[in-house]
Amino acid sequence: MHERTQPAAPVPPILARIRALAHRKVRDSSGLFWVEGVRQFVQAFDADYLFDTIVFSRVLLKSDLAEMLVRRLGARGVRRVAVTPEQFRSVSTTERASGIGAVVRQRWTPLGDVPVDRPLLVIESLRSAGNLGTILRTAEATGVGAVVFLSAACDPFDPAVVRASMGGIFHLRLVPTDHANFAGWAAKRGVAVVGLSPEAPRLWTEVDCAAGPVAVLIGEERGGLTPGGRALCGQTVRLPMCGRADSLNVGVAAGVMLYELVRKRFF
Amino acid sequence: MHERTQPAAPVPPILARIRALAHRKVRDSSGLFWVEGVRQFVQAFDADYLFDTIVFSRVLLKSDLAEMLVRRLGARGVRRVAVTPEQFRSVSTTERASGIGAVVRQRWTPLGDVPVDRPLLVIESLRSAGNLGTILRTAEATGVGAVVFLSAACDPFDPAVVRASMGGIFHLRLVPTDHANFAGWAAKRGVAVVGLSPEAPRLWTEVDCAAGPVAVLIGEERGGLTPGGRALCGQTVRLPMCGRADSLNVGVAAGVMLYELVRKRFF
Repeated sequence: MHERTQPAAPVPPILARIRALAHRKVRDSSGLFWVEGVRQFVQAFDADYLFDTIVFSRVLLKSDLAEMLVRRLGARGVRRVAVTPEQFRSVSTTERASGIGAVVRQRWTPLGDVPVDRPLLVIESLRSAGNLGTILRTAEATGVGAVVFLSAACDPFDPAVVRASMGGIFHLRLVPTDHANFAGWAAKRGVAVVGLSPEAPRLWTEVDCAAGPVAVLIGEERGGLTPGGRALCGQTVRLPMCGRADSLNVGVAAGVMLYELVRKRFF
Repeated sequence: MHERTQPAAPVPPILARIRALAHRKVRDSSGLFWVEGVRQFVQAFDADYLFDTIVFSRVLLKSDLAEMLVRRLGARGVRRVAVTPEQFRSVSTTERASGIGAVVRQRWTPLGDVPVDRPLLVIESLRSAGNLGTILRTAEATGVGAVVFLSAACDPFDPAVVRASMGGIFHLRLVPTDHANFAGWAAKRGVAVVGLSPEAPRLWTEVDCAAGPVAVLIGEERGGLTPGGRALCGQTVRLPMCGRADSLNVGVAAGVMLYELVRKRFF
């Protein structure tokens, strides 16, 4: 039997688990997430993320580096599941399936472990996974010491966020907390909280960050900072706008602010 | 007949035309584009764009301002087509159909008409409509004098670009040209062209824009500036990056650079 056609490969149960990880509830309850593509895989490895299961297709995978890491992780006892290209594509969310992915354990940093020698980015809430990913990418590039989430509305381990962050997520401290805990911690550590708001009286260049630790707080795309968010801020600053524009993309605004801090600190 | 049920409303031919305008080829050959939503509609009106046909649903439309503009444009002889909510939704690309849209004539500015008293933004090419829209939004907010396109790869009148620009597109000069024509024009007008490139020797803060007219040139998301693009630049500058990051989102990079010019000019 099956002399001319290949027998249908059995479907590994991991594929259903990966698909389930598209759902926030499943990510939250399992503490896992799905990482896909050579770049992300390598960055998760380099950042010492804990691998649960590696999924790969020998046919699709063309990266020597990734193959070497698969072998090395296998030698450490990480479970490896070889799948067919079709099976890999069935869980892939990228245009071109790279043939490598992994179920990886989420990693959060407790607020108490956050150092304050570098600027922090504090996110009250965001709607768009693309915006959050872009902001995490910028946060890594500008040397942000930690990204602090004041609500559970954002999930940095959302596959769309991980992808848009271009791997930036793996090299950042990600801190889950709330307004009250953050307020207490910031006061104790002497962190100056600077809120970004289009109505702020001061300009973005007027942030004084020579005085000590600083945290930039950004609010949700449409609503901006909530009253509770504003209450955290020692100062708020705005990016000036001309023309009919009354707002900027939140990822752009965060980027301009973070680079202004880079400029002030180093140049 | 039809005593109890409404007769099916005839389908106005404009709906097929609107759907066709989703295609670049049809936009190019007709010189028209589709504008949707109260905000965009009002901005197109305020910027004196030429309206071809207004399409609206009396049931969906809840904006007094938009209704007033519909009447005023009608009095000027602009064709108005009332459609059912279902018909409107069939051409709507937004989550909540606002009930107002228009087929509007594209407006391009010839390179020779571009003033050089404000910074210019020059785009070699971009893949993502979202990135282009975000960049146009930032360009308006930072007072860019014109956005110059060096290739036909980008279409600012793509509905996804118009939407992401948050109406910014209507208040910008949009200039179609190519490398050779731009090079000649910039030389004649004494415009200093500053290219953004991760490998540039100078920092983004080292742009000298006190000397005269300045243009910021950005390249495509992945490939960056082409050799032909680099050849246009009197200088290239980079945004410094730390960590493992080797690039930024192009919309963020453009925003940081444009706000650095704002800072240098005004603050």
